[in-house]
Amino acid sequence: VPNRLTARRLLAIVDLAATAVFALEGALAGIIAQLDVFGVRGVGVVTATGGGIMRDALIGDTPPAAFRQQRYFATAITAAVLAILLQHVADAIPAWLLTGLDAAGLGLFAVAGAEKAMEFGLLPLMATLMGGLTAVGGGTLRDLLLGEVPAVLRVDVYAVAALAGAATLVVARDRARLWVAMSTGAGITFVLRVAAAAGDWNLPVPGR
Amino acid sequence: VPNRLTARRLLAIVDLAATAVFALEGALAGIIAQLDVFGVRGVGVVTATGGGIMRDALIGDTPPAAFRQQRYFATAITAAVLAILLQHVADAIPAWLLTGLDAAGLGLFAVAGAEKAMEFGLLPLMATLMGGLTAVGGGTLRDLLLGEVPAVLRVDVYAVAALAGAATLVVARDRARLWVAMSTGAGITFVLRVAAAAGDWNLPVPGR
Amino acid sequence: VPNRLTARRLLAIVDLAATAVFALEGALAGIIAQLDVFGVRGVGVVTATGGGIMRDALIGDTPPAAFRQQRYFATAITAAVLAILLQHVADAIPAWLLTGLDAAGLGLFAVAGAEKAMEFGLLPLMATLMGGLTAVGGGTLRDLLLGEVPAVLRVDVYAVAALAGAATLVVARDRARLWVAMSTGAGITFVLRVAAAAGDWNLPVPGR
Repeated sequence: VPNRLTARRLLAIVDLAATAVFALEGALAGIIAQLDVFGVRGVGVVTATGGGIMRDALIGDTPPAAFRQQRYFATAITAAVLAILLQHVADAIPAWLLTGLDAAGLGLFAVAGAEKAMEFGLLPLMATLMGGLTAVGGGTLRDLLLGEVPAVLRVDVYAVAALAGAATLVVARDRARLWVAMSTGAGITFVLRVAAAAGDWNLPVPGR
Repeated sequence: VPNRLTARRLLAIVDLAATAVFALEGALAGIIAQLDVFGVRGVGVVTATGGGIMRDALIGDTPPAAFRQQRYFATAITAAVLAILLQHVADAIPAWLLTGLDAAGLGLFAVAGAEKAMEFGLLPLMATLMGGLTAVGGGTLRDLLLGEVPAVLRVDVYAVAALAGAATLVVARDRARLWVAMSTGAGITFVLRVAAAAGDWNLPVPGR
Repeated sequence: VPNRLTARRLLAIVDLAATAVFALEGALAGIIAQLDVFGVRGVGVVTATGGGIMRDALIGDTPPAAFRQQRYFATAITAAVLAILLQHVADAIPAWLLTGLDAAGLGLFAVAGAEKAMEFGLLPLMATLMGGLTAVGGGTLRDLLLGEVPAVLRVDVYAVAALAGAATLVVARDRARLWVAMSTGAGITFVLRVAAAAGDWNLPVPGR
């Protein structure tokens, strides 16, 4: 079954890429919050693995992949240490770079989460929601730990972008090659999120 | 086994009723917190499904019912959208209505959670606790996301009311028809909670 | 298989001892935060059982031990009630006693969590991380509920101490009797944590 194997490998690669991106981004947030080196690594690891662990616990794939395979934590810790080693540039990190990294991680986790949920037999709509949860879960844990209102509630077009990418993957996966479906979905999330941040898009607020 | 089927259907109905009530109440809280339309729906959905998802993840019924059956999210989103459409009345929502909706959801989830835990073979005391967790879980997530100290710690006679209803269900389910046991349990939670809010009942504070 | 039985019994004892210590410490924190009697018990129970419940949900041992065996909640509630009965001394509780209790619970849960994860077949590094999560999980939930930045991020040498104890257990369990490995691991966590608190050890902060 070479096609399934390829799909599994592709899923693993996307999962790891999202892990690295979110760890880097979470560690940079920890540096800005002036945590100590261990706290910075901790926040990086939680940001990077939190969404996937939630997804795996909920779809019943326990222990979660992050606890079965050393590469998730190894990737997350390496990325966080990289952020620490680059600490002297932390003050100079432009906001758009953090936004871009976050958008990339969001897109990759959205399609990885939705694809894994589909493979575990969830209905398409549910798999889309699970993709969204995978994408926003790690960042939400990070914000709760740092005492901030989670980005998913604070930032317009955040969860919406993740759900759009996950929905794209769910619709496209039977109609195109998996890598096409996954990169299209992740790309849609990325573009939506970055465009919303750049253009300061706002969703309507009820009652205003 | 028509009796089991009826029990299952009754459980599903109570679960859905609680989902709708909590989604409405969570969405109203989101409107008051001036979130955008997506945030309002998100808070409504988390309030409505959070407790049941925690329960199912813990008793090992994965993926949780909310991720297997579309009706949970469909109900929650419909109720949240209803709250948004009624946004012009949001400013005029009296506190007692929010309290009443919350008390109703609390009671319904307490008995639904305890009943499902009993069906999964938990001991009576544990099933009571699981009923309490199901009832307060969604609201606790909502409050954490909105940056508030959870109602379960802030408000007197909140978890107590949920546990009383769950305990009633656990004791009564073998001694009466299930719908009698469930409505009695939910009613006890509702009455206790509303009476405590109306009468401003306070539990003793150690050290005062 | 008397050796396995002994290991299981030892694990249960350590798990319960940690539960009692964390419940006492969590309840004292609740008293200081001026919660009512039910809130104090609730915070005590969450602090005591939260880490173990997270661990069991993640390694797939559902329902978690705390929901299968009444002794966990019974122990936690007894310890919390004890804290309430001693409420008149709560104002006089010295900070070092809270730190000491917390360090003891941290060490006991670190080795209990790592040992259970090893028994469930996790890789050594993953079991170490799971031990750390078991140790810091309950306190992190407590801090989030009370609206504080979690100790694990706030306090230097906290998660580090838990991970050191868990790693010691993982390395020593095949080379020594289990009770030796467990008490050495728990002792290392305790000594590291108390020494760090007493000596005000600080980890480097990136960027300073």
